[in-house]
Amino acid sequence: LRSPDDAPLIAVLDGYHPADIAEVMERLDDTDSIRVFRILDLVRAAEVLDELDSDTARYLLDNEVPERIASLLDILPADDVAEIVSEVTSGEKQEEILQGLADRAPEDAQDVRELLAFKPGTAGRLMTDRFVSLAPNQSAESAFATLRSFADDAETFNALYVLEGERLVGVLSLRDLLRARPNQRLSELMIRDIVSIPADLDQEEVARLVAKYDFTALPVVLSDGTMAGIVTVDDVVDILEQEQTEDIFKQSAIHAEPGVLNAPYFSAPIWRVVKSRVGWLILLFVAETATSSVLQHFEDELKRVVALSFFIPLLIGTGGNAGSQTVSTIIRAMALKEIRGRDAWRVLLREAGTGLLLGLLLGVIAFVRSMIMGRGLPLSLVVSLTIVAVCAWANTIGSLVPLLATKLKIDPALVSAPLIATLVDATGLIIYLNIAHMILKELH
Amino acid sequence: LRSPDDAPLIAVLDGYHPADIAEVMERLDDTDSIRVFRILDLVRAAEVLDELDSDTARYLLDNEVPERIASLLDILPADDVAEIVSEVTSGEKQEEILQGLADRAPEDAQDVRELLAFKPGTAGRLMTDRFVSLAPNQSAESAFATLRSFADDAETFNALYVLEGERLVGVLSLRDLLRARPNQRLSELMIRDIVSIPADLDQEEVARLVAKYDFTALPVVLSDGTMAGIVTVDDVVDILEQEQTEDIFKQSAIHAEPGVLNAPYFSAPIWRVVKSRVGWLILLFVAETATSSVLQHFEDELKRVVALSFFIPLLIGTGGNAGSQTVSTIIRAMALKEIRGRDAWRVLLREAGTGLLLGLLLGVIAFVRSMIMGRGLPLSLVVSLTIVAVCAWANTIGSLVPLLATKLKIDPALVSAPLIATLVDATGLIIYLNIAHMILKELH
Repeated sequence: LRSPDDAPLIAVLDGYHPADIAEVMERLDDTDSIRVFRILDLVRAAEVLDELDSDTARYLLDNEVPERIASLLDILPADDVAEIVSEVTSGEKQEEILQGLADRAPEDAQDVRELLAFKPGTAGRLMTDRFVSLAPNQSAESAFATLRSFADDAETFNALYVLEGERLVGVLSLRDLLRARPNQRLSELMIRDIVSIPADLDQEEVARLVAKYDFTALPVVLSDGTMAGIVTVDDVVDILEQEQTEDIFKQSAIHAEPGVLNAPYFSAPIWRVVKSRVGWLILLFVAETATSSVLQHFEDELKRVVALSFFIPLLIGTGGNAGSQTVSTIIRAMALKEIRGRDAWRVLLREAGTGLLLGLLLGVIAFVRSMIMGRGLPLSLVVSLTIVAVCAWANTIGSLVPLLATKLKIDPALVSAPLIATLVDATGLIIYLNIAHMILKELH
Repeated sequence: LRSPDDAPLIAVLDGYHPADIAEVMERLDDTDSIRVFRILDLVRAAEVLDELDSDTARYLLDNEVPERIASLLDILPADDVAEIVSEVTSGEKQEEILQGLADRAPEDAQDVRELLAFKPGTAGRLMTDRFVSLAPNQSAESAFATLRSFADDAETFNALYVLEGERLVGVLSLRDLLRARPNQRLSELMIRDIVSIPADLDQEEVARLVAKYDFTALPVVLSDGTMAGIVTVDDVVDILEQEQTEDIFKQSAIHAEPGVLNAPYFSAPIWRVVKSRVGWLILLFVAETATSSVLQHFEDELKRVVALSFFIPLLIGTGGNAGSQTVSTIIRAMALKEIRGRDAWRVLLREAGTGLLLGLLLGVIAFVRSMIMGRGLPLSLVVSLTIVAVCAWANTIGSLVPLLATKLKIDPALVSAPLIATLVDATGLIIYLNIAHMILKELH
């Protein structure tokens, strides 16, 4: 890359997969990345553009000549173009790019515009119209001829769609077609009982359906029965990865901004990382100040038995750990649709019970340890009873809060482990100091 | 289900997808689930068996007549049979089932045995030998005829494999075949530059490769160049879901036992849930007792300035939150291979810097709030300086520990947010009380 001569660079790049070139370009500075991008032939450049993260793609689209952009986008399927164009934030620039594409390929530009009309993150945005469509009165033999005409275009040949006009009336697999007698009609071969999805279905739901039923593609059907496109399993793989990252971020109290979420670790600028983390940290900090108020309220007790303060981190820390275990279990089960709203009571009882059992086990350990350390019976009793109560309570909060969030139509994945730990901290202290107040004679 | 008559039940089940029947059966008690299982015709029962969680599958295999089991397994592809059989824990029972299958279909049983020889969680276990194999000197036209002979067998037709003897020499897509002239040789059409994977590659790596390069299938090639099978994208979707659950559990300090991990929420018995959670809770509890020792060491200071204890939960809680954000970011980036071992120093500096910035922001807020609450300048200074130090320190630990784990060949995903929070607690207190000691005159 240091050399001004492009020839060796071209030779090196030639051996790489577009996904690898994209990965390298994301790590280069802007001048170098556009240089690499310009060296690539059109088809390769288009494939690389499709794989790039949004920051790098935006830079290239802003700095490449409009004609080349139009030719590049002309090569890619409409769903990928829609995704790339929607990443260019300014509406004006979007319009300019689409206009450029329209000059070259008006129909493609129209397809992209139609896709962009669907909300991001829905099946409508993911789908491609590059599917094999056949007619019900075709014979198996003529269907093979039609397959040939789709050779350049279709994204998959495993699933074939039978349309009457624009309405989807049946599906069949290539396997069915291979098995058929040459003169059999598709109307005899096709399955009429079609699993299809609406265009506004959330992409996470789409991924779940594909994963559950092992589909290779799902047809997207509009409310009037018109087939709009298909979502293929490889799109789903990308969504699963992306949603996974998003859930991990949410669960760790990080605001899931696209700029940080989709950028590889080193390519997100630090100020953006700080921005994505500071909001929740401040919120949790403010919530956590409740603990200071609780402790101040019990100032007298803490003064009289200073040993009480020795156990504060241990008790609320253990509560936080138990609560974290619960909340992540619940949220995962919710994401996998194993828990629904009507299961709320069963979940609460189950988790509270689990917490009680865990608390009893830890309580015994805490009691024995505390006695051995010579804390005396009353304080040991206070500590171990608090462990039992705090574990049961933490598990209850850890299941209650995500269930409540769902009821209030808030994304339960936002109920992070740190949030639960924070809630357990203040309430756990109240439990602790009240138990102490009841048991310790010094506090009467 | 209440009625002793099977006819209406059969009618109801007929309309359901095997994945849905499996989901219902997992929620039924044992007698009912085996009743449903026996009503299903062989093909449907086999498909349902393939979808069931391991507990239910094990129960059914233990209680169904061996002949029916053999006929069921005979229907499924070898990779699915291997997965089902490996879930039956007892080696004796495994042998019995394989023997039963061998009596019906000795070759299939042999295939399953070969798959079982690979370690669970590797490409070898996931692969299927149901792929389309063609010969290099075949013409495109004759390849189509061969495709027909694979109609019942092959798992995908999108990717076709060209073998010389048992050695993989080229791949081509159905698209390439559809585009070809009838008399073109496959040796001209095929791509010789093949991306293949070894049989012992970890399934998570397989998933990552498929996701990155958008493959629909990857060939598994043994060290001698023999093609052993293919891993298809739908297997990868299942793995991604499973690995996601596993990582979430690990990240929340839950021991990822298969019995709890793969079971739907309600079907794991409570004692198992307790078992999966109690180990880490005890370990963290023991680690957390260090905080008691630290506080006891500073007993004198806490007695003299009791207000110091008011801020303990706030300070270590904030440290824990910052540490959680960091560790989950790092572990996600490691899983996506965005961070490698050689990046360790860059990562540490970046995270420490981020922590410092976050700490400064929070420190200012803490200082202002503390002054307004009338805590006085010295204590406010102690609290806000501690916030800065603890955030920087928590982020350092949150990145250092997973990096160290990787160096020590420990799975970094085991470095959970609660573990980091626990480590930050004890060390954060030392930082806090030392800063207090330096600044507060009362402690001199």
